[in-house]
Amino acid sequence: MSGINLASDNATGASERVIAAIAGANGGAQAAYGADDYSLRAERLIGEIFECAAKVQLVATGTAANALALASVTPPWGAVLCHAEAHVMDDECGAPEFFTHGAKLVGIPGAGGKITPDGLRETLTRFPRGAAKSVQPTVLSLSQVTEAGTLYALDEIRALADLAHAEGLKVHMDGARFANAAISLGVSPAALSWQAGVDVLSLGLTKTGALACEAVIFFDEALHQDMPYRRKRSGHTLSKGRLLGAQAVALLEDGHWLELAAHANAMAARLSQGLAALPGVRLAWPTQANEVFSILPARIDDALRQAGYSYYAWSSGALMPGERVGEDERFVRMVASFETKPEGVDALLAAAKAAV
Amino acid sequence: MSGINLASDNATGASERVIAAIAGANGGAQAAYGADDYSLRAERLIGEIFECAAKVQLVATGTAANALALASVTPPWGAVLCHAEAHVMDDECGAPEFFTHGAKLVGIPGAGGKITPDGLRETLTRFPRGAAKSVQPTVLSLSQVTEAGTLYALDEIRALADLAHAEGLKVHMDGARFANAAISLGVSPAALSWQAGVDVLSLGLTKTGALACEAVIFFDEALHQDMPYRRKRSGHTLSKGRLLGAQAVALLEDGHWLELAAHANAMAARLSQGLAALPGVRLAWPTQANEVFSILPARIDDALRQAGYSYYAWSSGALMPGERVGEDERFVRMVASFETKPEGVDALLAAAKAAV
Amino acid sequence: MSGINLASDNATGASERVIAAIAGANGGAQAAYGADDYSLRAERLIGEIFECAAKVQLVATGTAANALALASVTPPWGAVLCHAEAHVMDDECGAPEFFTHGAKLVGIPGAGGKITPDGLRETLTRFPRGAAKSVQPTVLSLSQVTEAGTLYALDEIRALADLAHAEGLKVHMDGARFANAAISLGVSPAALSWQAGVDVLSLGLTKTGALACEAVIFFDEALHQDMPYRRKRSGHTLSKGRLLGAQAVALLEDGHWLELAAHANAMAARLSQGLAALPGVRLAWPTQANEVFSILPARIDDALRQAGYSYYAWSSGALMPGERVGEDERFVRMVASFETKPEGVDALLAAAKAAV
Amino acid sequence: MSGINLASDNATGASERVIAAIAGANGGAQAAYGADDYSLRAERLIGEIFECAAKVQLVATGTAANALALASVTPPWGAVLCHAEAHVMDDECGAPEFFTHGAKLVGIPGAGGKITPDGLRETLTRFPRGAAKSVQPTVLSLSQVTEAGTLYALDEIRALADLAHAEGLKVHMDGARFANAAISLGVSPAALSWQAGVDVLSLGLTKTGALACEAVIFFDEALHQDMPYRRKRSGHTLSKGRLLGAQAVALLEDGHWLELAAHANAMAARLSQGLAALPGVRLAWPTQANEVFSILPARIDDALRQAGYSYYAWSSGALMPGERVGEDERFVRMVASFETKPEGVDALLAAAKAAV
Repeated sequence: MSGINLASDNATGASERVIAAIAGANGGAQAAYGADDYSLRAERLIGEIFECAAKVQLVATGTAANALALASVTPPWGAVLCHAEAHVMDDECGAPEFFTHGAKLVGIPGAGGKITPDGLRETLTRFPRGAAKSVQPTVLSLSQVTEAGTLYALDEIRALADLAHAEGLKVHMDGARFANAAISLGVSPAALSWQAGVDVLSLGLTKTGALACEAVIFFDEALHQDMPYRRKRSGHTLSKGRLLGAQAVALLEDGHWLELAAHANAMAARLSQGLAALPGVRLAWPTQANEVFSILPARIDDALRQAGYSYYAWSSGALMPGERVGEDERFVRMVASFETKPEGVDALLAAAKAAV
Repeated sequence: MSGINLASDNATGASERVIAAIAGANGGAQAAYGADDYSLRAERLIGEIFECAAKVQLVATGTAANALALASVTPPWGAVLCHAEAHVMDDECGAPEFFTHGAKLVGIPGAGGKITPDGLRETLTRFPRGAAKSVQPTVLSLSQVTEAGTLYALDEIRALADLAHAEGLKVHMDGARFANAAISLGVSPAALSWQAGVDVLSLGLTKTGALACEAVIFFDEALHQDMPYRRKRSGHTLSKGRLLGAQAVALLEDGHWLELAAHANAMAARLSQGLAALPGVRLAWPTQANEVFSILPARIDDALRQAGYSYYAWSSGALMPGERVGEDERFVRMVASFETKPEGVDALLAAAKAAV
Repeated sequence: MSGINLASDNATGASERVIAAIAGANGGAQAAYGADDYSLRAERLIGEIFECAAKVQLVATGTAANALALASVTPPWGAVLCHAEAHVMDDECGAPEFFTHGAKLVGIPGAGGKITPDGLRETLTRFPRGAAKSVQPTVLSLSQVTEAGTLYALDEIRALADLAHAEGLKVHMDGARFANAAISLGVSPAALSWQAGVDVLSLGLTKTGALACEAVIFFDEALHQDMPYRRKRSGHTLSKGRLLGAQAVALLEDGHWLELAAHANAMAARLSQGLAALPGVRLAWPTQANEVFSILPARIDDALRQAGYSYYAWSSGALMPGERVGEDERFVRMVASFETKPEGVDALLAAAKAAV
Repeated sequence: MSGINLASDNATGASERVIAAIAGANGGAQAAYGADDYSLRAERLIGEIFECAAKVQLVATGTAANALALASVTPPWGAVLCHAEAHVMDDECGAPEFFTHGAKLVGIPGAGGKITPDGLRETLTRFPRGAAKSVQPTVLSLSQVTEAGTLYALDEIRALADLAHAEGLKVHMDGARFANAAISLGVSPAALSWQAGVDVLSLGLTKTGALACEAVIFFDEALHQDMPYRRKRSGHTLSKGRLLGAQAVALLEDGHWLELAAHANAMAARLSQGLAALPGVRLAWPTQANEVFSILPARIDDALRQAGYSYYAWSSGALMPGERVGEDERFVRMVASFETKPEGVDALLAAAKAAV
C-alpha cells in the first residue's frame, strides 16, 4: 500500500526552507517571549506584504489564531456569525467559546460553504439589538478558503463586510488557506483582507508549509491592545519565540508561501480535472483552491482505499441545490499540499480509471 | 559588549540533537493532531523513564502545561495552594485562572521559595471545608526547582504530599526544571514524582534543551480523561504533532535531557562558587540547580552590565530570615543553560573580580 | 385604554397566598443562606410531591435555574441539545454558556416547538463521539411547556429520554410552566419528570404565581453535589433564604400551584376557542397550556392594540408544515396567568369580534 | 434558650415597611425585567439621594452586586486589589473570579481591616505594568464598613482613590453596610461615594432592612454600558422586577434606610460599651458601625452560648499590632440589626456580667 496521503494539508511536514530556517535561527541568545529578532522581522514582513501597519501575534495553531482573533472582537454576550459548517463552529472543540468566555457561534447555512448577503441579513434579524435577553451580533467570521474548498470573490467579501459593518459588527477572516485563495484569485494579500473589509485575519502558514505557525493580523491597531495578555494567558506565548519567527520569515520572504500554495492549487486542479473526466464521478463543489470534493462511484473509492490512498469520507449540509449522494456513491475530500507530486496525482487517477 | 546571556534558560535555542530530530522527522506523511509516530514514541519513552503507565499530553509551552494540569485537578470553585511566589502565581498572566475557569490561587509564604508543612497546614485552616461560601482547597502545586532555585528533598515532597492527600487534595508538580532537580538530587524521575506523591507533573523540556516542548504527565489515568478536549479547546493540539514528538524523543532518548541538565547545573555551581568567593558577595539562596541568586556590591553589578552580561535584577519576599539587600547592593539572578560554557563563566568571574 | 395584559405570565404580581406567606415568614431569626425553616420545608414538600428523595436548590429566576441545572450536567466541551427556539437558546443572553463555561447549545428544528426522535438522532450524528476536535453531546434539554405553547406527551418524553440516555446524555427539563403541563396532561409531577426519564428539572414557580422563585430539582443526587458552590459562586444564594422558601411553601402546599395553573390553562382555552371561532383567525399551534398563538387578520390586531390589549407579536421557524403568515395577517402570542379573569377574556373576544 | 440572634444582620427578616411595599406593589400588570414602575422609581430615588445622574442595576444578593460591579471594571487579566480579608476575597466562593472570567483578587494586609496607602503602594509595585506575563492591577475594592467593623474616614478613602486613579485603577466600594457607615460618619451618601472617588458602588440594602435587594450604582455611565447583558446572562434580572423595586423604594424613601441603620449602630454601641466595661473583656477593634468584635474570657462566652445567644466565633490576621487572643479567651463577632432591641442587648450584658 503505497498510495499518497491526501487526508489533509497537515499530514505533511514543512517546506525544506522552513526546516533550514529553524536550524539557522538556533544559535545564540535571543530575547524571550516573542521579542526575538525573527518574530520582529516576521511582523515587518507582514506589514510589507499587507501594505499596512498591521499588528501581529504569532501562535502555533490555527485554533489558537482563530479563537484569539474572535476574542479580540466580541464580548462574552456577543454572537459570532459564521457559516453553519465553519471550522470554528465544528472542528475546534469549542475553542472560540473558551477564549471568548462563552460567546455564541451562530451558523448561517449556505450552499457551497458560502454565506450570502441574504443569509446574513436573515440571521441578523433574529437578534433584537439592545435587548438584554439576547446575545448581540458582534462579528462576522468568513472562511477563505471555505470548508467546501470554494472561494469568496472580492466583491462578495466586500458586500458581506459592508453589511456587517453597517450593523456594527467586526469582520474576521479564517485564512487557514489564505495563500491558496490569494493565488487562485490572483489578488494581493491586502486586496483580499483589509481592502475588502477584513478587520482581523487568522493567517494560516502551517497548512501552507510551516510546521506550526500562524499569524493573527490586526488591521485595526485598537483591536490588538489586549492581545499580549490574551496570548500569554492562554499559554500561546512561546518562550523561545524564534521557533515561530523563523518559520514565518522563511515562508513570507521572497514569496515562498505563495509559491507553495500555487503548487498545491495546481496539484488539486490536476486531480480535480482528472477525476471529473471519469465516468460516474462528479465534483460536489468546484475546485477553487487546493481541496477536491468529489462524489465517486463506490468501486472507485474502494479501489483507491485498497491501493493505500488516504483521504476523508465527507458529509455536508451545504451541497449545491439538487445534489445528493447516491446509494452506491461516496462523498470524499482530497487535499493537495506543497508536497503533492504530479506523479502521485497521476497514479491515483490511473488507479481510479482502472476501477471504472 | 560581548558578555554571555544568563537572563534565563530560555534565551538559548535548542540542543543540536533537537534540531536534527526536527529535520529528521520532516519527511513523509504522519497522522495529525498528536497521533504521529514521534508523539506516540515520546509517550512510550516517558512510560519507561518514569517506570509506570503514565498518560501524556505534549504541548508547546510551560504555561499551557501548568494550566492544563491544574485544570485537570480542580473545579472552578477550588483553591490551588502554591508558594506565594510560584510561577503559576506571578508569571503566567492568570493562565491557571483562565484554564480552570476561575479557581483561586492561594500563595503560601516560605523562605527559600519552599512551602513547609506548617505553612500548608495553616493555609488549609483558612478554608472551611464544605462551606459553600468558601472556595475549597483541591490542589497543592509544588515547584521543583523552586522560584528561588532551591530544591525540595524527597522526604519533604512526600511529607507535603501526604498532608495534601490526607486533606483530599491532589498534588501537582511544576517541573519546568525537573531534569535539573533530578540530577542535583541524584534520584530517578519516578522517585521524584509519583513515588513521592505527585499526581500530575508538568515536565519541562524547553528550558532543558527543546525549542518548545513540555509534557503533562498524569500518573493517575482518570485525571487524564478530559485532557484531549481541554488541550484541543485551548488551541494546544498541534496539527503537525511531529514537531513536539520529535523534540521530546530527541531529549528523552539515551538520557540526553539529563546530560544537558547536568551540564547546566555544573555551570551554575561553577558560577556560584566563584561569586561566593568574592568579597562582598553572598548567595541569597543556596545554588541547588542551574540558577544562581546572589547579592552583589553595586559596583560589581555595574561592571558586569557594562561588560554586556545579561541577567535579571530580582526581588523576593522569600529571602532567608535576617537577610536583606543593602543600599549599595543588588539582588540578581543568573541562569545557566545547556549552552553555557565554562570559559564564559570564568570570564564573568574575572570581570566581577576586577570590579571588587 | 383598559385592555388586559397578556404579554406574559410574568407581567402580574404574585398570588395573594404568596404575599401572605412572605409577610408571615418575616418575624424572628432564621439561619441564613438557605438553611432557614421555610427552604427546608420547601425541599420536603418537593420530595413528597415528586414522590422521591430529590435534592433541591431554590433560586430567584428561571434563567438561573436553567443555567445552573445545565452546568450540573455538562462540561465546557459538551453540547446541550435543545429545540432551535428554546428559551435557553434565544432568551437568556447566553446564561447557559456563562454558567457552563462555554458549552455549545445546539438547536434542533421541529414543528410546533417539539423535538422529534428523528431530529435528535440526526443531530447526534453530527458530533463524532470521542473525537477531541468536536464538542461532545452531554445533555438533552426539553422545554415542557414548549416555546410554542405545546406539550410533549409522556411517551414522547420517554422516547426522547431513552434515546438520550442510550447515547450517554443526561436529560434536563425546562419546566418554567411545568404546572400548566401537568394539569393539562392530567399526570402527576413524578410521572412528568423522573418517571419519564428527566434527570434534572427546572421547576418554575414565578410564572405560576410566585414573585421570584424557581426550584432546581435533582433526581440523581450525585448531580447535585457541586450545586451549593455553583449557586453561591453565581450570587444566587440569598442570605435571607426565607424569601424563596416562603414562596415555594405557599405555592406547593395543598396544591395551590396546580390550582393556579389550572385557572390559567382554562382562561387560555376560553381565549383560544373564542379566537378560533372568529372568521379569518386560526391557531398557529394547538393551545395545550396557558399560551395562545394565533394568526389574526391585521384589523383585529389593530383593534385590540387600540383598545389597550398587551401581547407580543411573534415569529417562529417552527410553524406547522404548510402554514404561513399572510400579508394582511399578524402572528401573535397571548398568555393567560393565574390572574386572568373570564370577563377580561370575554371582553377581548368581543372587541375582536367587533373588528371582524 | 431564648437569647437573641446576633450572628449576622441577615438572620432577621425585613423592615415592616418593606413587607408592606412588596404587598402594595403586587396588584396589576407591570413591565417585566426591571422596566417596572418601582424599579424606575428606585433609580430616580438613588439619583436624588446620591445627587448625581447615576445608572443603577438592582439585584437580589450582595454577592451578585459585588461580582457584577467588579466585572464592569476589570478584564479577565486584571488584578482586583482588596483587603486580605475582604468579603469578596473570602466569603463569596469565588464569585468575583466567576463573573470577571478569572481576574485575580490580591489581598492587601492591614490592621483593623483597612488598607493603607503604603500597603496599596507596595502591592502595586509587585505587578509590572504592561508586562504580559503579569496580571494588571485594574481595580481597588474598598469595603465600607470593613470586615473588622471599622470605617475609612473620608480623607482616607480619597487618599486611596487618588492613588488608585493615578495608577489607572478604578475604585469599587463594597457597601454591604453603606448606610451604617454614612450614619456613623455623619456624611452624605454622595460624600461617601463618588465625591470621595468611588466609581462603582455596591449599595447593600438587605442587611439594612430589605429581604433581598442590592443596588449596583455606576457613577460613571460608561461603566454601566454592558451591565444589562451581564445581569441577564448571570440570571440576575428578575422577571417580576417589582420585587426588587418595591423594596428599594420602601427603604430609600424618607430616609427609612438611614433610620434603620442608625438604630442598628446605636444597638451595637450599647453592646460594645457594655461589654468593654466588663473585667477581662476588650474590643478587638473599635465599634464604628453595627458590628462588635470582642475578645471575651471563655467563661463569658460559654455562659452566653448556654443562654442561647447566637454569634460567630471569629479569627483574623488583621488584629491590631500587639493584640492576640489568649488561651482562655474567645474572639467573637456580634452584629446588631434594625430589629435588635435595647432590652435584648441589656439582657445579654446582664448574662455576661453574671458570668464574670
